[in-house]
Amino acid sequence: MRNLCGSAGAVPGACAVNICKGDSKMRVYNFSAGPSTLPLNVLERARDEFLDFAGTGMSVTEISHRDKAFSAVVEDAEALVRELLNVPEDYAVIFVQGGASTQFAAIPLNLMHNGKADYIVTGNFAKKAWQEGQIYGDAVKIGDSSDRTYTYIPDVDELPYSQDADYVHITSNNTIFGSRYAKFPECKAPLVADMSSEIFSREIDVSKFGVIYAGAQKNLAPAGVTIVIAKRSLIQDPLKICPTMLKWKVQDDNGSLYNTPPCFSIYMADLVLRDLKEKGGVKAANEKAEYKAGLLYDFIDNSSLFKNNVEKPFRSIMNVPFVTPSAELDAKFIAEAKKAGLVSLKGHRLVGGMRASIYNAMPVEGVKALIAFMQKFEQENK
Amino acid sequence: MRNLCGSAGAVPGACAVNICKGDSKMRVYNFSAGPSTLPLNVLERARDEFLDFAGTGMSVTEISHRDKAFSAVVEDAEALVRELLNVPEDYAVIFVQGGASTQFAAIPLNLMHNGKADYIVTGNFAKKAWQEGQIYGDAVKIGDSSDRTYTYIPDVDELPYSQDADYVHITSNNTIFGSRYAKFPECKAPLVADMSSEIFSREIDVSKFGVIYAGAQKNLAPAGVTIVIAKRSLIQDPLKICPTMLKWKVQDDNGSLYNTPPCFSIYMADLVLRDLKEKGGVKAANEKAEYKAGLLYDFIDNSSLFKNNVEKPFRSIMNVPFVTPSAELDAKFIAEAKKAGLVSLKGHRLVGGMRASIYNAMPVEGVKALIAFMQKFEQENK
Repeated sequence: MRNLCGSAGAVPGACAVNICKGDSKMRVYNFSAGPSTLPLNVLERARDEFLDFAGTGMSVTEISHRDKAFSAVVEDAEALVRELLNVPEDYAVIFVQGGASTQFAAIPLNLMHNGKADYIVTGNFAKKAWQEGQIYGDAVKIGDSSDRTYTYIPDVDELPYSQDADYVHITSNNTIFGSRYAKFPECKAPLVADMSSEIFSREIDVSKFGVIYAGAQKNLAPAGVTIVIAKRSLIQDPLKICPTMLKWKVQDDNGSLYNTPPCFSIYMADLVLRDLKEKGGVKAANEKAEYKAGLLYDFIDNSSLFKNNVEKPFRSIMNVPFVTPSAELDAKFIAEAKKAGLVSLKGHRLVGGMRASIYNAMPVEGVKALIAFMQKFEQENK
Repeated sequence: MRNLCGSAGAVPGACAVNICKGDSKMRVYNFSAGPSTLPLNVLERARDEFLDFAGTGMSVTEISHRDKAFSAVVEDAEALVRELLNVPEDYAVIFVQGGASTQFAAIPLNLMHNGKADYIVTGNFAKKAWQEGQIYGDAVKIGDSSDRTYTYIPDVDELPYSQDADYVHITSNNTIFGSRYAKFPECKAPLVADMSSEIFSREIDVSKFGVIYAGAQKNLAPAGVTIVIAKRSLIQDPLKICPTMLKWKVQDDNGSLYNTPPCFSIYMADLVLRDLKEKGGVKAANEKAEYKAGLLYDFIDNSSLFKNNVEKPFRSIMNVPFVTPSAELDAKFIAEAKKAGLVSLKGHRLVGGMRASIYNAMPVEGVKALIAFMQKFEQENK
C-alpha cells in the first residue's frame, strides 16, 4: 500500500498510502486480472475534472457524444492507438462494446465468408472463441495445448493450417493460465488475435495481422470498451446475419459513433493512452513489463515454496500464476496478502492457486512489495 | 447555471453556479438527449469516492467484477430495478452492453421463433428496430406515423396485428420527435418496448410487457449499459445464430456477470436508482416530469414565437422539440442559450430546430431557467 500524500507506511513488504490528506484509507496494490489497476495520475485527473469536463460545465458522464468536446476525445484516442501501435493507414481503429466475448461472434460474422476458420486453442478464452466460431461455420481446432493445462503454446510452424480458412484465430496472451505466444503464426489466411490482456505491453507489427482486438479493462481503461483494429479490405462484406452493431465496417464508417458509445470508458482510455505516450510508449511499457515479470519469475524460480508451471519461453509478462504445495497454504497466502494491501491475488477458479496480474499500470514498487511479502511468507511457512 | 457552493449568479434567466470553492467554472443546465444530465449529488458522491470504492483502496473503475464489493453493486442495482418498477419475479432483469441499437438485433435473435414480428414505426429508432428485424425474418410494419413526421402515435386499437407474430415491437417514447404512447397496445403476441428515453419517469405495469429494454444514458446512468427486463418463459430458446453475448438467458443465468460487465456504468446506475428511491420512486419522478413538461408546453403553446408540432395526447414528457418560424432564429436561439448556460438545445439533425430533453435529473429550476430565457428571447425577437 502507498500513501498517496507521500509518507511511507509501516506495513512490512509494502508501503502504506493515504488516499488524500486527512483520509485514513489506503490505496492497495491491486493484482486483479481485469478490471485492473489504472495509473494513479489518470484516476486523479478523472476525479478532479469529474464535475466539469473540458470547461463545459458538465461531467464527461453527462455530455452528448455528438458534442465536439467529446468527439474530440474519440478522435484523440483513435489517433493515439494509431501512433502508439504504428497502425497502417488501411486499418480501421474502432471502439465498440461487449468485451472480447462479443467479438468472438463478431469475428466469424465479419470474416467467415467461406464458412471455415482455424483456431489455436491455448486457453479458456481461446476455447470460447473457437466454440463461438462453431455457431457460424466450420471452426477447425488446428492446435490445442490443453494436454498440459495450457502451460505452453504449440509450435506455430508445425500446425495444420487449412488451405481455405477465412482466418486463423489466436489468443496472444492467456490471462488465466499465464502463457503467451513468443512467436506469432505466419499463415496464409488473415491472423486474428485477441490481445485483451497484453495490448500496449508489447511491440507488434500490426501489418502482420488481419484483426487485433482487446477488451480495454486490463491495460487500457475501465471495463466497457473494446478496441478493434482491422484491415479495412477484410471487413467490407460482413455476413447477412451479422447484427448491424457488430459490423466493424459500420463502426468504422461512423468513427465509433454509430450509436451512443461507452463515453466514460473511451475518455479514460484516452487519458491512459496519453499517459502511455508521455511515459515512452509501448517500447518503454514493454521494458517495464519485462523487468517486473523478470523480478517475479526470478524470485519464484528460486523459491522453495512457490512455483510457476508455465514453460519458460511462453511465460506471460502480464499474468503470473503461481502455487504453493497445498491449497490450504494458497488460501492462507491470499488472505494474509490481502491484509498487507496486496489484493486480488486469487487465481482463476479454473486454475486455483494465485495469480499476479502485473499490467502496465502496476508500479515496479507493487511487484517488489509482492516479492517482499512472498519472501516473508516463505520464511514463515517453511 | 447554478453555483454549486450556494451563491446565486448573475446570468439573467439562469443562476450561476461554481463547481466548487475557488473554482470559477460554471455548472450548466444540460438539455442533451443522451448522454444527459445526472443528479448532482450522485456525481459528487462518485467523485468523492472515485479513488477508494467502498473502502477497498481501489477505484470502482479498477476493482474486479468478481469482487464481492462490486458484485454487491450489481445485485443492488437489479434489486432496485425490481422494486422501483415492481417487476414480477418471473422476469429477468439484466445489464448488458451495446445500447438499444444492439438490442434491435437481440430481440429477433431471442424471440423470432416463427420468423415473424410486428413493428409499429413511430420514429427514427422504431424504424431502425424494424429494419434490423428484417435481417432475421418477416418484420411487418403494422403502423407508421411518418406521414406526419412522427408527430403522433397510431391508434393502437385499430392496427392490423399479425395472428402469428412472435412479438409486437414499439418504441414507447420517441427521443427525436418528442412523442410517446399515451396507451400501450393490447395484443396477443408479447409486447416488446424500447423505453430508453422514458424508463423510470412513468409508472408501468411490467406484466403487460414481454420485454422492456432501455439504454441507460438518459434516465439511468452514463452511457455504456443497457437494461433488459424480460419474461423468463420467453427467453429460454434463442435462435441458433444468436451470439452468446446477446442471449438474454445467458446473461440472466449469470447475473449479468457472464463476462466483464460495464462496471462503472452499472455502479452509477445503482447510485441513480438509490437516489430515485430516496426521492419517492417512479411515482414522484413522474409527477415531477409531468410538472416540468407542463410548464414548458404551456409556455410554448402560449408563445407567439415558439411552436411544438406534436399532437397533444402524444407529447413526450421527456423530450420537447420546438421551433421558431425560421432556421436562422433557431440557430440564434441555440447560440444565445448556450452563452446563458442552457446547453445541448439543438434539435436532432433529422428534425432541426430545438429540443429540450428534461429527464429525471433535470431540476425544475432548469426548466424554469429555460422558460425565462425563451421569454426574454421572444421579447427581443418579435
